[in-house]
Amino acid sequence: MKSFCVIGLGRFGSSVVRSLVKNNYEVVVIDTDAKKIDDFKDIATHVMIADATDERVLKNIEIDKFDGVVIAIGQNVQASILTTMIVVESGARNVIAKATTDVQVKVLEKIGADRIIQPEKDAGNRVADNLAHPDISDYLDLSDDYSFAKMKVRNIKFDGLTLFQANLTQTYRVNVAFINKTDGTASIGRHDTKIGIGDILYLVGTKTDIEKFSEII
Amino acid sequence: MKSFCVIGLGRFGSSVVRSLVKNNYEVVVIDTDAKKIDDFKDIATHVMIADATDERVLKNIEIDKFDGVVIAIGQNVQASILTTMIVVESGARNVIAKATTDVQVKVLEKIGADRIIQPEKDAGNRVADNLAHPDISDYLDLSDDYSFAKMKVRNIKFDGLTLFQANLTQTYRVNVAFINKTDGTASIGRHDTKIGIGDILYLVGTKTDIEKFSEII
Amino acid sequence: MKSFCVIGLGRFGSSVVRSLVKNNYEVVVIDTDAKKIDDFKDIATHVMIADATDERVLKNIEIDKFDGVVIAIGQNVQASILTTMIVVESGARNVIAKATTDVQVKVLEKIGADRIIQPEKDAGNRVADNLAHPDISDYLDLSDDYSFAKMKVRNIKFDGLTLFQANLTQTYRVNVAFINKTDGTASIGRHDTKIGIGDILYLVGTKTDIEKFSEII
Amino acid sequence: MKSFCVIGLGRFGSSVVRSLVKNNYEVVVIDTDAKKIDDFKDIATHVMIADATDERVLKNIEIDKFDGVVIAIGQNVQASILTTMIVVESGARNVIAKATTDVQVKVLEKIGADRIIQPEKDAGNRVADNLAHPDISDYLDLSDDYSFAKMKVRNIKFDGLTLFQANLTQTYRVNVAFINKTDGTASIGRHDTKIGIGDILYLVGTKTDIEKFSEII
Amino acid sequence: MKSFCVIGLGRFGSSVVRSLVKNNYEVVVIDTDAKKIDDFKDIATHVMIADATDERVLKNIEIDKFDGVVIAIGQNVQASILTTMIVVESGARNVIAKATTDVQVKVLEKIGADRIIQPEKDAGNRVADNLAHPDISDYLDLSDDYSFAKMKVRNIKFDGLTLFQANLTQTYRVNVAFINKTDGTASIGRHDTKIGIGDILYLVGTKTDIEKFSEII
Amino acid sequence: MKSFCVIGLGRFGSSVVRSLVKNNYEVVVIDTDAKKIDDFKDIATHVMIADATDERVLKNIEIDKFDGVVIAIGQNVQASILTTMIVVESGARNVIAKATTDVQVKVLEKIGADRIIQPEKDAGNRVADNLAHPDISDYLDLSDDYSFAKMKVRNIKFDGLTLFQANLTQTYRVNVAFINKTDGTASIGRHDTKIGIGDILYLVGTKTDIEKFSEII
Amino acid sequence: MKSFCVIGLGRFGSSVVRSLVKNNYEVVVIDTDAKKIDDFKDIATHVMIADATDERVLKNIEIDKFDGVVIAIGQNVQASILTTMIVVESGARNVIAKATTDVQVKVLEKIGADRIIQPEKDAGNRVADNLAHPDISDYLDLSDDYSFAKMKVRNIKFDGLTLFQANLTQTYRVNVAFINKTDGTASIGRHDTKIGIGDILYLVGTKTDIEKFSEII
Amino acid sequence: MKSFCVIGLGRFGSSVVRSLVKNNYEVVVIDTDAKKIDDFKDIATHVMIADATDERVLKNIEIDKFDGVVIAIGQNVQASILTTMIVVESGARNVIAKATTDVQVKVLEKIGADRIIQPEKDAGNRVADNLAHPDISDYLDLSDDYSFAKMKVRNIKFDGLTLFQANLTQTYRVNVAFINKTDGTASIGRHDTKIGIGDILYLVGTKTDIEKFSEII
Repeated sequence: MKSFCVIGLGRFGSSVVRSLVKNNYEVVVIDTDAKKIDDFKDIATHVMIADATDERVLKNIEIDKFDGVVIAIGQNVQASILTTMIVVESGARNVIAKATTDVQVKVLEKIGADRIIQPEKDAGNRVADNLAHPDISDYLDLSDDYSFAKMKVRNIKFDGLTLFQANLTQTYRVNVAFINKTDGTASIGRHDTKIGIGDILYLVGTKTDIEKFSEII
Repeated sequence: MKSFCVIGLGRFGSSVVRSLVKNNYEVVVIDTDAKKIDDFKDIATHVMIADATDERVLKNIEIDKFDGVVIAIGQNVQASILTTMIVVESGARNVIAKATTDVQVKVLEKIGADRIIQPEKDAGNRVADNLAHPDISDYLDLSDDYSFAKMKVRNIKFDGLTLFQANLTQTYRVNVAFINKTDGTASIGRHDTKIGIGDILYLVGTKTDIEKFSEII
Repeated sequence: MKSFCVIGLGRFGSSVVRSLVKNNYEVVVIDTDAKKIDDFKDIATHVMIADATDERVLKNIEIDKFDGVVIAIGQNVQASILTTMIVVESGARNVIAKATTDVQVKVLEKIGADRIIQPEKDAGNRVADNLAHPDISDYLDLSDDYSFAKMKVRNIKFDGLTLFQANLTQTYRVNVAFINKTDGTASIGRHDTKIGIGDILYLVGTKTDIEKFSEII
Repeated sequence: MKSFCVIGLGRFGSSVVRSLVKNNYEVVVIDTDAKKIDDFKDIATHVMIADATDERVLKNIEIDKFDGVVIAIGQNVQASILTTMIVVESGARNVIAKATTDVQVKVLEKIGADRIIQPEKDAGNRVADNLAHPDISDYLDLSDDYSFAKMKVRNIKFDGLTLFQANLTQTYRVNVAFINKTDGTASIGRHDTKIGIGDILYLVGTKTDIEKFSEII
Repeated sequence: MKSFCVIGLGRFGSSVVRSLVKNNYEVVVIDTDAKKIDDFKDIATHVMIADATDERVLKNIEIDKFDGVVIAIGQNVQASILTTMIVVESGARNVIAKATTDVQVKVLEKIGADRIIQPEKDAGNRVADNLAHPDISDYLDLSDDYSFAKMKVRNIKFDGLTLFQANLTQTYRVNVAFINKTDGTASIGRHDTKIGIGDILYLVGTKTDIEKFSEII
Repeated sequence: MKSFCVIGLGRFGSSVVRSLVKNNYEVVVIDTDAKKIDDFKDIATHVMIADATDERVLKNIEIDKFDGVVIAIGQNVQASILTTMIVVESGARNVIAKATTDVQVKVLEKIGADRIIQPEKDAGNRVADNLAHPDISDYLDLSDDYSFAKMKVRNIKFDGLTLFQANLTQTYRVNVAFINKTDGTASIGRHDTKIGIGDILYLVGTKTDIEKFSEII
Repeated sequence: MKSFCVIGLGRFGSSVVRSLVKNNYEVVVIDTDAKKIDDFKDIATHVMIADATDERVLKNIEIDKFDGVVIAIGQNVQASILTTMIVVESGARNVIAKATTDVQVKVLEKIGADRIIQPEKDAGNRVADNLAHPDISDYLDLSDDYSFAKMKVRNIKFDGLTLFQANLTQTYRVNVAFINKTDGTASIGRHDTKIGIGDILYLVGTKTDIEKFSEII
Repeated sequence: MKSFCVIGLGRFGSSVVRSLVKNNYEVVVIDTDAKKIDDFKDIATHVMIADATDERVLKNIEIDKFDGVVIAIGQNVQASILTTMIVVESGARNVIAKATTDVQVKVLEKIGADRIIQPEKDAGNRVADNLAHPDISDYLDLSDDYSFAKMKVRNIKFDGLTLFQANLTQTYRVNVAFINKTDGTASIGRHDTKIGIGDILYLVGTKTDIEKFSEII
């Protein structure tokens, strides 16, 4: 079974740990705060009250043996950088570090982190997208041009049509990937899938095409 | 043109503001910290050094006239709740509040916020998904069963096939919504779209189907 | 026997606890401060050093089984709101919360507290009333028009009259509810109760009538 | 017109000031905190940012000329005592001081304050009384034996009777001082005042009598 | 044997304790600081880590049984006043309190302290006197007019005279109380005591007389 | 006219300044605290908000030109030592420094301060002496053997005698230096000065002689 | 003329600036502390109160145009790393950074600093060397084997010999690089340079050879 | 074997301790911080958690018996001075103290420290020298005129010459003390030592001569 190490039990780290544990992975957690560690002693596989910027700590738990290491240190940029340095130096794989500023992202890249996460910045971008597109309840950029969006069927003209009949890929240049129907069922978009008033469509298209389509559907 | 008010210029709020401004919306920002406000005086439409928990402040700027209000107050749970209360009481629309704990989410719901965001928790879940599915580089839950995932074509057997020929919807029960090709072009998934080694597929399916497919593709 | 739970041992909470205990009720007290808890370990029925914003704490003591819960958290508005949320969610009865600002009062109402107390504000109003009516030593508003007041008999003309003879209800439109006599005895106001110089009268009337009467008596 | 001086703009002091100003008295307020003073500059007659423990400050405003002085200093016991000392030494009249502990009450008495208020302790006692007497919605001790209470008429047997007919003073030894009727009108208790189901009675009696009566009415 | 209680182990209190112990008195010391108490556990008769503003503490040690109580609390004016209140209330004898400001002196007097000490103010006065009178090495005011001073014999004309011959009381109106001779011996001033060059005279006189004499001697 | 410089306006320094000013000397005061300096701007000859540990500050005011320099820095041992170093280095005369511990006294001596004062320690010794000798209201050590003391005449046998008749120097080996009579007059001790019941005697003698005499007089 | 930029005015940075200025170079200094900047406004060529972790600050002064940049940030490891990142990214030459721990040294190396200084660690090593070799008054490691040392001539046998006669390079395998003679003159080591008792020799050799020689010379 | 005492385990003190231990000396370390002491309990001979400004601590370990005492107290100037005073008073030998300001250096000299170190200031001077002389990679002042420097051979004209042939002492007035050759070998400068391109020369000369030579070599 795969095992991971999560350093730092703030909201981000806690969320990583709970998700991994729910999927039945082995998770070792490290934090300097005895109270936080205490909260996870029945959740994680193994817990440690320790300062990860002390090189001996990570050496002792053989940090390079894990399938992935998440440096989820929040407030303390210094500890985040020094810990990532030690983890990378140890030869660990899949090193994921949380960053809070763009300069910190650059430092973590130089040091050799495999992936760098900016939770607050990402969430802010998503909220802005949602405010900008109120008819589209969720919105995710796939590239500079294309997005993945979620919207409700309101136009009676589409009611009862199959995706094949509606012919959305040709006419509106949007591809319906998934449908949540009003009767509670859900399915991936197939030719014979029927659309009805109130159904939630998840689709892909260029930003312009999605916006236009959101006014028609 | 639409106008929004963002209260709090932490990393989340800053990111919301920059995104909205980039999309050419009018944005009014409020923070108690003069230094932060100074950083945004050339970015936002209008800036204010003020304490949003003082009812007079939000009344003066007619908070109920905006197309959306984001309460992006981070550290201070008390200020977050009291500000949201005042904003909701004023009759404002599209009230989005950031929360840090599950209890705070409940309070904000009771008070009447339209949408509540937990950036750190969401990011943590996504990172855990990625660690759990290393072959799938991005992963987004659409429902309890279905997910939206991103993976690279590695199997020679699919090289050169159109989506129609590959017949993925039938055989693997996954729907390819979007393709990023190795030549830099991209398109939504159509019948005649060709797949090639190294292309990035964005697809929808049940979690089980996606995982199985990720081992084949 | 009735049992109550008091959360927070500041001056307000301590006073609630001592009063309830003096009346022989069972009282469970919770505070995060070990020193305060220690001061009450021989006074309350049961004491707990715990953080009530941790949902597990209140679940463990079955907070919904008490005859009443007082959230007497003072300085910390956040803890006050979150604890009240958890208490209300649990289905507890007679939830009384202390508030410090008017906005906090609104939040606690929305959340579902049964009664909200503002000790400092109430005391301030009473002191102002007393300063405004120096001849009336205590003063309590019953409605916008009527008040309950306390004043001393100084006018020789009333000396020795029964309430029936004095006929205050008709002549001055004030109703004497209670009398503290100079000989140390006391009684509710009856027809045959005699008034004497120096007696303290507790009476009800409109504010105007009370003020006029205070100049005559 | 009467004029008062309020030292300290915490919740208690603020409440005193607002009440006095609403009754059109002249109020001078003093606090060390510029922000608080700023909030009252349009409310009070005169405001001062000053430290009242500096004897020159109170001498300059001729503290002995006011009709009453309220020392509403909360957190800082030392400032409360020293200020009261200076105010009393100056020969000021009607010196009212807020206290937080019983020892502080004794010190303020020795120093010569005319009246000492303990808002939190008083409110705590009242809340405990209410919890102990759930049928009685408000409760105020007049002496060790007698109380003033408020309760709703629920028993059909009293419906439509005048106070004379109900004969409560004789039968139950309680004196109804004031009635709030369901039709919105209110009056002091007279012989011919009628009681109806749902009316709120304000009455005086011994604690035992009130409690018994609350079970009958 | 006499016993004393010293509350507070700052520099003043420590000095009181060491002096009393050196004279073989029994001394009980109280301080809230465990470290300070530890320093005195081998010096004082009995030590206690306790907060003297908690009435139970002083009641338990029967504070009224001591031959004197020194409240040597320095920084914390509040604790100084409250403790003195409790000590005086208990009926203790010879209550000596240290004060830091003139207003505090007044409060402590009102409360009933027997003697109040201001070490820094007193020392300041003495240093100023010494700077003002460089020829007189020590100087102590006995009344508004008279002082006690210390000066060296420099004038050859007095060398070898007895006090009777020198006739200082008549000629210079100063009374030599004590002499420290250059040979190391010392004696009170008698008729036959001889003065010599370099001897130190301790004498009393009016300030003017002392100053004039200091220029002659 | 003489001029002095006082560095530090705590209670000790303030007392030095007020005493010197009352005697009409020129006094320059220096403190880092603008508020304290403001309090002395109408009292001292010249005031400066400055950090005396910055060598340029003392050079600019020509610290070596004053008739005396008092380093009255209290809390901050470091600033006390460094300032004294700079003052001594500058060649200033009559350098008096306040110390708080015995080690600090040694350092200040090594550095070259002319006189070192320990107000709290000295006051503590005096209070202990007073507690030890309750019949003697003031007590000052002149040497290891001799003291200067103050006591009241209580014994009728001395009433009306002149000092010559009482013959105290011979019989009790104490020398009366000064007398405060009950009629308000005072004088130095002369042969013809009369003693009366209630007079206060200031006298010198060995400690043993003084104590014995205090039981007789 | 060469110009340098020094970021941070702690003791290390201040020392760099003073040294460079003494050598007549142009020096621009940056610090967040207005007081420190004020101290250097007459010393440095140009001063700036600014936070160097803000990328705009360093871009504005064209940090890449200087002949060298010293990041002399002490206490704040985070600011040290982020500033170095920005400086290196800008393309600046001769980037010298101060480090406080070994991990920080690694991070600064990865980021691309040209030279990293650890003042406290280096000084500690030197002091230890001196304690270990009390006969050798200064000691500097050149490689793992060779050192540069300073010692006094004490042995009469070498008195008056030239370096050629003494033949130290052959006999003791040490090379005298420089001599400070007792008459105050100094010279590099030449064949005809004479050695005398009391002269100070600066020489190179292996550690073993130096130690042996120090016992002979 | 020699033994040393190091007081203070900051970066400077830690470095002293590690160096001494590496050379196999006995080292006793003292610090007030339990965590730091814990880090050295397996490194030093003996460790103590104690406050060295408490005279009893140093008396107990017989501080005067060590072969050297290093007062490596950093942040706290007061503790540095007081500890040095106590150490010197005890009669200890080889007392080395770290200082942070020039005034502190003077105080420590007056008190009697044998040697005073300023790590940050010294390192700053060295860095400035290096920036000023980029062709010379290390630079150390031996006197006001002479320096010890390190530079690389770049000029083909010297390639293959022996030091005798190159005749640098005569022609350039610089004395090559030590050579690090490109083949990894090293030796002190002898007549027959050959120079090659890329070799690193360590040499002594006047500053002017060194700078000129650095442009030729």
